[in-house]
Amino acid sequence: MSRLEEKTINIEKIFTGKVISLQLEDVELPNGNTSKREIIKHPGAVAVLALTDDEKIVMVEQYRKALEKTIVEIPAGKLEPGEDPLECAKRELEEETGYDCKEMDWLISFYTSPGFADEIVHLYIAKGLVQKENAASLDEDEFVNLIELTLEEAEQFLKEKKIYDAKTAYAVQYLQLQKALRK
Amino acid sequence: MSRLEEKTINIEKIFTGKVISLQLEDVELPNGNTSKREIIKHPGAVAVLALTDDEKIVMVEQYRKALEKTIVEIPAGKLEPGEDPLECAKRELEEETGYDCKEMDWLISFYTSPGFADEIVHLYIAKGLVQKENAASLDEDEFVNLIELTLEEAEQFLKEKKIYDAKTAYAVQYLQLQKALRK
Repeated sequence: MSRLEEKTINIEKIFTGKVISLQLEDVELPNGNTSKREIIKHPGAVAVLALTDDEKIVMVEQYRKALEKTIVEIPAGKLEPGEDPLECAKRELEEETGYDCKEMDWLISFYTSPGFADEIVHLYIAKGLVQKENAASLDEDEFVNLIELTLEEAEQFLKEKKIYDAKTAYAVQYLQLQKALRK
Repeated sequence: MSRLEEKTINIEKIFTGKVISLQLEDVELPNGNTSKREIIKHPGAVAVLALTDDEKIVMVEQYRKALEKTIVEIPAGKLEPGEDPLECAKRELEEETGYDCKEMDWLISFYTSPGFADEIVHLYIAKGLVQKENAASLDEDEFVNLIELTLEEAEQFLKEKKIYDAKTAYAVQYLQLQKALRK
């Protein structure tokens, strides 16, 4: 196996925003040549596959400016600096859906776009949902509609491209796998 | 259900690179207030779940500068301007692995990071792999090691976080689902 690492020669910071920052890195390639890498730094995120007692999947319909369209996703949100992913998952579930949960377990973590971004998503599964009376509210620039779908409805939403993102597609396939394994 | 769309007021182009570009958008929120959105534009990508005749999964080990680590992924690459995703998938499979294929079918497309990027990945499954004698070569700044894994080995790589990205995690889970459905 050949060596693959790239050595950082220089980092030029281009932009620092509220959500992401962009830097341009000069790197030394494994063969000694140099190249440039365009890199997005992101704080990381959580996502929650939350199931009601009657096995519906709790989802949020949200407009995504980057896509210029409204899609249906499992609840998710960015990590605050130093925040524990499990605590963040509970907070985002409450803020976006009003649900507290009795059980929350880690399923998987994955990088979303390793070619250009360091964003990682930590995916949790939540059960024993309880609607809170005074739930924490959304950020002031966040607007979502709550939707609860059966697995069959979620499969249909995938076909119709209403569900259209990696973490939600993974979560729906996770439930398909659990169902197939139970049989 | 409440209205969710955000109206574009202004677009400020911050950076245009070889792979991504960054723009800062002023938007009007559903409640009439304004906010800013940091948006990455990406040409889109393909990924290929390629299976050998003895059911091994063809993967590439690759250093990802954004992550500062080497991970194992299914073959993938960016769309060229105007390129058909299926043609791109065949080209990337050949460039990264040296394999041509007799069958290639679309599985799913998903956005990877809808919160800040418009990157979409089109995932294909390839069978009937044939090693080409004079395969197209990698881009001059791309270096990969070819690895072929059984499903059990891929599951172990996921546990060890050698496989660590959304598209590859989805692809491995897809094979777990097909296996469970066959039983």
